[in-house]
Amino acid sequence: MTYCVAVRVDQGLVMLSDTRTNAGMDNIARFRKSFTYHVPGDRAITIMCSGNLSITQGVKTNLSKAIKESELDPTVETILNCDTMHRVAQIVGDAMRSMQGQYRESIEMGGSASSASIMIAGQRRGGKPRLYLVYSAGNFIEATEDTPFFQIGEHKYGKPILDRIIRRETSLEDATKAVLVSMDSTLRSNLSVGMPLDLTVIERDTYDFRVRTRIEAEDEQFSRISHSWGAALHKGFRDLPNVLD
Amino acid sequence: MTYCVAVRVDQGLVMLSDTRTNAGMDNIARFRKSFTYHVPGDRAITIMCSGNLSITQGVKTNLSKAIKESELDPTVETILNCDTMHRVAQIVGDAMRSMQGQYRESIEMGGSASSASIMIAGQRRGGKPRLYLVYSAGNFIEATEDTPFFQIGEHKYGKPILDRIIRRETSLEDATKAVLVSMDSTLRSNLSVGMPLDLTVIERDTYDFRVRTRIEAEDEQFSRISHSWGAALHKGFRDLPNVLD
Repeated sequence: MTYCVAVRVDQGLVMLSDTRTNAGMDNIARFRKSFTYHVPGDRAITIMCSGNLSITQGVKTNLSKAIKESELDPTVETILNCDTMHRVAQIVGDAMRSMQGQYRESIEMGGSASSASIMIAGQRRGGKPRLYLVYSAGNFIEATEDTPFFQIGEHKYGKPILDRIIRRETSLEDATKAVLVSMDSTLRSNLSVGMPLDLTVIERDTYDFRVRTRIEAEDEQFSRISHSWGAALHKGFRDLPNVLD
Repeated sequence: MTYCVAVRVDQGLVMLSDTRTNAGMDNIARFRKSFTYHVPGDRAITIMCSGNLSITQGVKTNLSKAIKESELDPTVETILNCDTMHRVAQIVGDAMRSMQGQYRESIEMGGSASSASIMIAGQRRGGKPRLYLVYSAGNFIEATEDTPFFQIGEHKYGKPILDRIIRRETSLEDATKAVLVSMDSTLRSNLSVGMPLDLTVIERDTYDFRVRTRIEAEDEQFSRISHSWGAALHKGFRDLPNVLD
């Protein structure tokens, strides 16, 4: 499985993914699920993938191929030169639909699931920060003020803290802490989600990554967050009013 | 859906269930999922059900029918007169298997799921507090020192706090708080789990219920727990070390 979470707040975008994949319980591997695209001064985009790995790798290859082609032929439309973030979501959705059209039937005949989903978070100059979720069929939805975060994969363990903390006016700092705490709870409760993590933060109107980092298992900052949160939960728990007479 | 949680600690047993059932999103009803059986001075048992409601109601009817019959013919074995808690689990498992044998095929032909699971928590004089989980096939597992709690239904939202708090040496007081907090998180994040709640607490070697109560939506004690926990999470969150430079 996978856990990816993306938040859109007024100040910008925060994206966090784990790196564990598994085909059955005894075939566990590590794959990057988070990919960044940057045109300095023009756009910064993070794409996070979950679901069938051959499908999402195929989508990514299609995106890269177009980018390569556009170096020779600038009329080729890519996620780096298209007009809007909405168009980026359409391009990713089209690549998803193409991959599913090619492989879904044969994958499912073999008894595997071909379903996949991809989150796209980014901002291009002249537009607002945007967050999209692309489904297997290539259709997509956008995060709104009412629903400022999306999760894919093992989303339930880490949802309560996001429900409590994330609002559109939440600071980028707090949104980053919230996704780290949400991931920490998921890592503790589900073996199919694993370190290291990939974190990106895009601050509004910078068209750049304020943070683009891999968090390893021994990362000190993440350990501090994890320990501090664990201690706060234990203290909060100890301070609860008694319930038995 | 449903959320039921049962904990076995050294001091006894704690069981909590919600009461929401739904057949589709537009057919939501309220059904008790938690049932208690008591022979003063001899045994106290709580049974909690999830899954196909016709199946679990049928299981319960079978148990009650045997109890009625045993009033006329004391040689009829029931969960109130059998020798051990392990035998209680077998009787419930047999009733489950019988119901599934009778209805599974026709239920699934109609496109519904017949699966169900039942948790059994209790102690009889001469034995230890025991906690069992009965599956659709009538087979069952028992909670051990390594795994001192079971959950059925929408278990993921409320698992992180149990993972952090529940150990075999956790007090009955803390175990009760932990299941209430676990339920509170689940209620907030999943509409298919709803108030009121049914809580039972069995203290070791009393063969009685220390608590056997329905917690309504406006319950003051539960509100205090819920507010206190929410405030502790927000405070703990505010106190986390900063992660952005």
